[in-house]
Amino acid sequence: MVYLAAGREISKAVIKRLPRYFRYLQELEAEGAERISSEELSRRMKVTASQIRQDLNNFGGFGQQGYGYNVVYLKEEIGKILGLNKIHNIVIIGGGNLGRAIAGYTRFENRGFLVRGIFDVDPALIGKQVRGINVMPIGEIEDFLKNNEIDIAALAIPKAEAQKMADLLCACGIKAIWNFAHKDLEVPDDVYVENVNLIESLMQLSYKLNKDN
Amino acid sequence: MVYLAAGREISKAVIKRLPRYFRYLQELEAEGAERISSEELSRRMKVTASQIRQDLNNFGGFGQQGYGYNVVYLKEEIGKILGLNKIHNIVIIGGGNLGRAIAGYTRFENRGFLVRGIFDVDPALIGKQVRGINVMPIGEIEDFLKNNEIDIAALAIPKAEAQKMADLLCACGIKAIWNFAHKDLEVPDDVYVENVNLIESLMQLSYKLNKDN
Repeated sequence: MVYLAAGREISKAVIKRLPRYFRYLQELEAEGAERISSEELSRRMKVTASQIRQDLNNFGGFGQQGYGYNVVYLKEEIGKILGLNKIHNIVIIGGGNLGRAIAGYTRFENRGFLVRGIFDVDPALIGKQVRGINVMPIGEIEDFLKNNEIDIAALAIPKAEAQKMADLLCACGIKAIWNFAHKDLEVPDDVYVENVNLIESLMQLSYKLNKDN
Repeated sequence: MVYLAAGREISKAVIKRLPRYFRYLQELEAEGAERISSEELSRRMKVTASQIRQDLNNFGGFGQQGYGYNVVYLKEEIGKILGLNKIHNIVIIGGGNLGRAIAGYTRFENRGFLVRGIFDVDPALIGKQVRGINVMPIGEIEDFLKNNEIDIAALAIPKAEAQKMADLLCACGIKAIWNFAHKDLEVPDDVYVENVNLIESLMQLSYKLNKDN
């Protein structure tokens, strides 16, 4: 891991913030900004300048005293840390509404995340396409993973099926699961799970609405 | 706010964890469990028993020494805190893939989140339906909000349009925005925004894959 300052462990909170830095730097680049001070970035991002300096120091720091940060350089370095300089191939397990919405989302492609296949149990969906991506029978997933370099599997299936499918994916060598099922998955230590739980996100809003009434 | 122990401010981290407690308690109820100790809940949820006790103490605590927690009672109390004992009406702004996926997702309904309308600018979508929910012209949103008791607006539109639409929604009295646009929204203090940023979630996975290579 070349980006780490020696012996430092980057906290999960910092990693969570990196995509947001990336997004703001992209916007600055689009505006034609060449450099930015941590103070100006702080005003835009509504976090303290000291947090920005601390966060970026985790990676050896990219700023220069009195100059600030070079926008394009910093964006590209953060992009590299996030692995955005590489192509990531995705399969989607589950061809329902959610699975198809993920497959149909072209923004992922702009960032190098390419959906290579959709898998489902429903015979009515098999053979259909979403933006040219085939929906295939779930029985073919193992062969597909064997013959294609897939990095990430998105799980968009009911919670009752999720753990069994995760076990199969891990056995096939998948190291990253993007989990939309409402289920905490048990996976080997070297497998990463990123949960997207839409109903729990909605509950945060209803909590806040409820609190005020 | 009747659920708060006097003078206490509940941290955002605790609120974020409540839906997960709710989910596990639901599963326990479905298994027929009447009560559960914080130790057993700790084993299932893979958080410490002391964190469970601390979290639930925020709300006055629901446990009894030597008995543990009453599953149904605790589930219902957390449900009330999360506002799940009420119906919440939702509009979806944006009838693209993502907007339609949200509209098509019946699980929200089971929790009392009802999608009342979808709004879009695209004439080709107007008049269509998703599960019986009408797609209406965005020009009708103000009247619709005036004539229907809508609590939550889901924003599933491009980032370039998101702030303008958020301004309009806030002007119409919306207090909760479920934001799928890749844009930090500026809203009045009494409006809650819950961001769901799918591409940033995917970047967490590519960071982790990248880190190991």
